[in-house]
Amino acid sequence: MPNIPYKIYLDESEIPSSWYNVRADMKTKPAPLIHPATLKPMTFEDMRPIFCDELIKQELDNDTAYIKIPDEILNFYKMYRPSPLTHAVFLEELLDTPAHIFYKFEGNNTSGSHKLNSAIAQAYYAKKQGLKGVTTETGAGQWGTALAMSCSFFKLDCKVFMVKVSYEQKPFRREVMRTYGASVTPSPSMETKTGRAINEAHPGTTGSLGCAISEAVEVAASTEGYRYVLGSVLNQVLLHQSIIGLETQAACRKYNIKPDIIIGCAGGGSNLGGLISPFMGEKLRGEADYKFIAVEPASCPSFTRGKFAYDFCDTGKVCPMAKMYTLGHDFIPSANHAGGLRYHGMSSILSELYHEGLMEARSVEQTSVFEAAEMFARVEGILPAPESSHAIRVAIDEALKCKETGEEKTIIFGLTGTGYFDMTAYEKYNNHEMTDYIPTDEDLAKGFAGIPNVNL
Amino acid sequence: MPNIPYKIYLDESEIPSSWYNVRADMKTKPAPLIHPATLKPMTFEDMRPIFCDELIKQELDNDTAYIKIPDEILNFYKMYRPSPLTHAVFLEELLDTPAHIFYKFEGNNTSGSHKLNSAIAQAYYAKKQGLKGVTTETGAGQWGTALAMSCSFFKLDCKVFMVKVSYEQKPFRREVMRTYGASVTPSPSMETKTGRAINEAHPGTTGSLGCAISEAVEVAASTEGYRYVLGSVLNQVLLHQSIIGLETQAACRKYNIKPDIIIGCAGGGSNLGGLISPFMGEKLRGEADYKFIAVEPASCPSFTRGKFAYDFCDTGKVCPMAKMYTLGHDFIPSANHAGGLRYHGMSSILSELYHEGLMEARSVEQTSVFEAAEMFARVEGILPAPESSHAIRVAIDEALKCKETGEEKTIIFGLTGTGYFDMTAYEKYNNHEMTDYIPTDEDLAKGFAGIPNVNL
Repeated sequence: MPNIPYKIYLDESEIPSSWYNVRADMKTKPAPLIHPATLKPMTFEDMRPIFCDELIKQELDNDTAYIKIPDEILNFYKMYRPSPLTHAVFLEELLDTPAHIFYKFEGNNTSGSHKLNSAIAQAYYAKKQGLKGVTTETGAGQWGTALAMSCSFFKLDCKVFMVKVSYEQKPFRREVMRTYGASVTPSPSMETKTGRAINEAHPGTTGSLGCAISEAVEVAASTEGYRYVLGSVLNQVLLHQSIIGLETQAACRKYNIKPDIIIGCAGGGSNLGGLISPFMGEKLRGEADYKFIAVEPASCPSFTRGKFAYDFCDTGKVCPMAKMYTLGHDFIPSANHAGGLRYHGMSSILSELYHEGLMEARSVEQTSVFEAAEMFARVEGILPAPESSHAIRVAIDEALKCKETGEEKTIIFGLTGTGYFDMTAYEKYNNHEMTDYIPTDEDLAKGFAGIPNVNL
Repeated sequence: MPNIPYKIYLDESEIPSSWYNVRADMKTKPAPLIHPATLKPMTFEDMRPIFCDELIKQELDNDTAYIKIPDEILNFYKMYRPSPLTHAVFLEELLDTPAHIFYKFEGNNTSGSHKLNSAIAQAYYAKKQGLKGVTTETGAGQWGTALAMSCSFFKLDCKVFMVKVSYEQKPFRREVMRTYGASVTPSPSMETKTGRAINEAHPGTTGSLGCAISEAVEVAASTEGYRYVLGSVLNQVLLHQSIIGLETQAACRKYNIKPDIIIGCAGGGSNLGGLISPFMGEKLRGEADYKFIAVEPASCPSFTRGKFAYDFCDTGKVCPMAKMYTLGHDFIPSANHAGGLRYHGMSSILSELYHEGLMEARSVEQTSVFEAAEMFARVEGILPAPESSHAIRVAIDEALKCKETGEEKTIIFGLTGTGYFDMTAYEKYNNHEMTDYIPTDEDLAKGFAGIPNVNL
């Protein structure tokens, strides 16, 4: 592919000025969030105690295709966007494949991932509403870092509940958040009813994401001038993340790149949804066809082995219920190193698209993921996050298929971030101590048993 | 300054195709390295057992102004270069200064710093000479990481001696190197004569850079097909790092930016030398005038309080002697968190330029450096390395002076890297546990006592 630079950087003026809302082009809209008590769709008023007004509007808007990005957010985007679309020439050489491989790299910012795209938007709307601060939970810490950076920029208070085991094992992430002025509390804490109850019931517990969510929501709902924000799963998050796909689309058009396959890792779906949205829009409108592949860990296979049903978004059952591919809100995935992909559920938008067969999914084991990560790092220079490496694995697999068939396919994958805070996992891999774990059908049955029986 | 994007990315085609050798424009050339036994200038033959042939040529070449960058190196550069020259609009706003502030950011690669610019060149020449591998030492780990990445790319064996205390305290850096296939040995080791002797004399020692250099040189000199490589101080390293300054110069010309002040942190001088070289060339040729400021830690003030004299480059006295600003090869700086700036000496090129008054130097204390780092991180998004933050500190100081005087000066500083592996230092700062240490005249006198009495 001559005349394409290794790294395509769009001009600043080419940053999209609107987000794209794929729901507008979906014939069957994603199922609405429902209230766990009434089982009725959550209304604007239902959500106001928890979420910012403008974000609720975005959450509920299934019709507006393009939503203008406010200038203040665009200005912030310009600090780290457009992100490069990189031609993986050295990986192609190594694989000796006729395939053309590109990756959209979202890791060139201090949060280390794409999470910043939505964090800055959510912080902005909170500030605009005159709020004092926001609360959230974080597991691996990328979302918490992105939110801390965003709140620091808009001078907003930021309270992060960090799963206790991560708080202790990932002190570096914690310190990045603190450097940006966020307060970071190990969860379960003694600051909330939920936290105290859990600490009492399970002394010495190291916490869970579900518990941290409950604590963050409790504090937001009970503190004047605070709201809760979430880094994935929600429609609004996929909307903000569409900036990834829009830039990718613009770069493809500029250099006449015609992707055949678009691949992304999927935890809650924010990166994958953002990357594929504009391309999925083309597919939904019948303008083009693409093969989309969601990649998830074999240890947490929401798409490939989950059920399409209404379920709670959190273990603590304080959040609304969403219709999605789920392993059950009680499902506890094994200690996979891709913390960002250890979520029992999945974005309702992506779930609907997958359900309709518009998208494929594949699950991969972590040792093969780290093998791909190492291969990629050594030739392409970037040390990838374990989450992102799931997409690398499948991109390599697809490129190797092309080698067998001789097909000159164009593959684009999302490289969501860097692995600089994941070196404990790499150490395990380097020392040949990493293992795989695939849940048995019995393991899954336990999770499925907790899925409420809701049929609307 | 309208019409200048936040981040200036040159096109790939605008990457300089030659390095610039500032020695060619210096009327007084930097003093040559001398042999510690004969006190005569090191010849090509003297250096052959230790360094690659082509690199020795570059080391000794005081006359060729432009040296072509081989295509293989240019191809690698394209993976992470051109690096952005960023307009620090948010920092300007925060400081409310009439000054225009720009920074050349070298941290957007997995080594996390500018070190990769020279590492890839040194690995290339080693490979081209048909060598099997290279050895080096690393303290904080940035150079070791850059070299590991480069050797992995050219399939060259890479043996890193890592100061034992860093090996134990910075396991993440160690694992990045291992992921790139390097072998990392804590120094002092039992693998070398020097290491065994030091372990015997000082049981339980946690090592020093001086000792690690000695071990790396010993292994290189005694192993068939191996050479030693160094990440700073040497003329060849400043040559490779001129890519930083050349890109900065090209971006300035493209957008009509006329810098008044150019600032860089200085440890061994590789980043500062690389950044200022082309601008210094203009100054030396009488084409333009700039104010250059080297920033060093108050705890290790080679320029501001050192002596301009011949001294050993390493504590173990196995390396040649260089004429430079030095605190004495025995000088042990206090435990400052900017590991990359804890070097007793300084590049001979920069030392000569400073001696002639063509450059200024300033020393700053680490708490004020971290204060600047935090301020910068919160508005500009990037969490800077402690080393780079020295330059930020002085850039802010100069911008605040402009605020007082009302002058609209243009300031460019080098942001050499990110601080993701330095969170222990940030944690100290966040917890208000960071202290400053300025060596007394008596402390310095001890170091000066070890400087050999060489007058050529």
